[in-house]
Amino acid sequence: MTKITQIQEFLKKNDAELAVFSDPITVNYLTGFACDPHERQMFLFIYDQQDPVLFVPALEIARAKKFVSFSVFGYMDSENPWEKISAVLPNTNAKRIYGEFDHLNVTKFQGLQTVFSGRFENLTPFIQRMRLIKSADEIDKMMVAGEFADKAVKVGFDNISLVATETDIIAQIEFEMKKQGISKMSFETMVLTGDNAADPHGIPGTNKIENNALLLFDLGVETLGYTSDMTRTVAVGKPDQFKLDIYNLCLEAQLTAQEFVKPGVTAAEVDAAARNVIEKAGYGEYFNHRLGHGLGMDVHEFPSIMARNDMVIEEGMCFSIEPGIYIPGKVGVRIEDCGHVTKDGFQAFTQTPKELLYFEE
Amino acid sequence: MTKITQIQEFLKKNDAELAVFSDPITVNYLTGFACDPHERQMFLFIYDQQDPVLFVPALEIARAKKFVSFSVFGYMDSENPWEKISAVLPNTNAKRIYGEFDHLNVTKFQGLQTVFSGRFENLTPFIQRMRLIKSADEIDKMMVAGEFADKAVKVGFDNISLVATETDIIAQIEFEMKKQGISKMSFETMVLTGDNAADPHGIPGTNKIENNALLLFDLGVETLGYTSDMTRTVAVGKPDQFKLDIYNLCLEAQLTAQEFVKPGVTAAEVDAAARNVIEKAGYGEYFNHRLGHGLGMDVHEFPSIMARNDMVIEEGMCFSIEPGIYIPGKVGVRIEDCGHVTKDGFQAFTQTPKELLYFEE
Repeated sequence: MTKITQIQEFLKKNDAELAVFSDPITVNYLTGFACDPHERQMFLFIYDQQDPVLFVPALEIARAKKFVSFSVFGYMDSENPWEKISAVLPNTNAKRIYGEFDHLNVTKFQGLQTVFSGRFENLTPFIQRMRLIKSADEIDKMMVAGEFADKAVKVGFDNISLVATETDIIAQIEFEMKKQGISKMSFETMVLTGDNAADPHGIPGTNKIENNALLLFDLGVETLGYTSDMTRTVAVGKPDQFKLDIYNLCLEAQLTAQEFVKPGVTAAEVDAAARNVIEKAGYGEYFNHRLGHGLGMDVHEFPSIMARNDMVIEEGMCFSIEPGIYIPGKVGVRIEDCGHVTKDGFQAFTQTPKELLYFEE
Repeated sequence: MTKITQIQEFLKKNDAELAVFSDPITVNYLTGFACDPHERQMFLFIYDQQDPVLFVPALEIARAKKFVSFSVFGYMDSENPWEKISAVLPNTNAKRIYGEFDHLNVTKFQGLQTVFSGRFENLTPFIQRMRLIKSADEIDKMMVAGEFADKAVKVGFDNISLVATETDIIAQIEFEMKKQGISKMSFETMVLTGDNAADPHGIPGTNKIENNALLLFDLGVETLGYTSDMTRTVAVGKPDQFKLDIYNLCLEAQLTAQEFVKPGVTAAEVDAAARNVIEKAGYGEYFNHRLGHGLGMDVHEFPSIMARNDMVIEEGMCFSIEPGIYIPGKVGVRIEDCGHVTKDGFQAFTQTPKELLYFEE
């Protein structure tokens, strides 16, 4: 069953005639057509019984047609997109319509309501669920994205130097990735030294790499339409025993959660597996974020691995396991692997060792 | 009058008690606090008569407090943000509330509607208008962003080589920018050779730089919270006369529009000034996008310089003037300067020459 057929089945089951997709990543997921329309309008209309219609900015029509076998229509910047949609769609009389409420802004929503008088329902849970379980082909692509993340962090390791700044190392990592054909990192690469790493959302800058401190790398790439994301924290010189203890505590939490994952446990239980380790040691307050997030075509997607989420883990889900301990002014550590759930456990996409690595200039 | 006072005045004038800001860029514009909450919730609540409240993910609280003098509240990933907002706000009984409809998605909107029973109105036009006219300080920052764009395109020119690929040159440009302290390009840098440049949304890849062809650079940086954006098309080797003619036509259109800009003309007239040049020469169908877009903290913001937009141009507006001519399989040219409107005309943020530059390997 194709993805579009699955959506048509969903519509029939829910007595709805139309699904409207507005998130460019979902459109890519469903059609293979990758496009960021910026503030322009782009929608994929999937009917229960008629052929889908893709509506794009005019300058994207030719490219879009290479990806889909159904009708593609567009509008010029000087045209009213809602009038154009009304004019080109085979019908606009659906009584019950599903839209991506987590993506659709109020302006677009009101625009669509000028086209359709039917009642809108939330499609986000269904499409999140559909994207949640990755196919073997998707997992293969995420493995490739993970291999590039391993290569990227290796570039970072190779460029550790006490005369380099955080930004210098980021420049080297991204340069090497671009040279290897990666057009886009999946988020802004983080290289954080010492105190800066102790801020869970620290921002890299012109700080020189500190000696006898920990150094944190958080990075990922986009390739083949899929993302990777990993974090490693390493030692530069000889960090004191307290820093090493915190590192080892974070590592124990990461490994405990990773070992714990298997089909049937809940997201909250996975979070608790890591959090209990850190809380028992008395540092719970310094692990102030969820354990992990889903990823796939987007680097942050469903599910959230956190307290209170009683979603049951299933084979094919892909997410991060990334405990962190941030003690302002003292030490910051985060260790993260993303991976997929197999029938037996958790298979990481990244293979860089997690035992503390030491670098001397 | 501070920006927050301006919003309070707007509320009073419109008989409303509360404005809710959800766009992280607007929050930054109003408070100086830059934060991308990803899928987490962040809102700035500005009351007509009470102190504002900033609501952020818990792990951002400490940093947010450095930027604002009013209350900051947060929520943990495991908490319900809407319940938390209800609990921390000084009051939730506003009858008329303004929200950013161009940013607020339906899920957030419905979440806010569980907190507030008042009627929501669209704040987007007001905040767009407020951000539209840049202060002298903002223009100074955009000048700096423009200078970096000039440096970046110079790096590109210096790396032109027939053995280089588009991606190689992009890697060099971004590497040099990172080394100079630019943490983020304002969009994905474009280097497009020959046929690839003939696609208005072509994607850079491993194409070797073509000889006797045109080569297009489209790039910008983010610095000091503001963006730049520029496009230059240059000659590699000896492009044929047709390519040169199309280049000169595009340049004439660009210069004509840039000369035309002054307070009092309309956005549509500026677009027409460039479009008429290209249409008269018979190539109107190959200029298939609007002439320009506003920019500031965001690289695409209000206004749109296009047909049918009869917005009157005023001093302090900042936008791009970027005609393009894309003839598939033959030639692609785009020339773009961004600048600000002065009392006399248009002052570009980028100074790289626009007469056709020639490069030999």
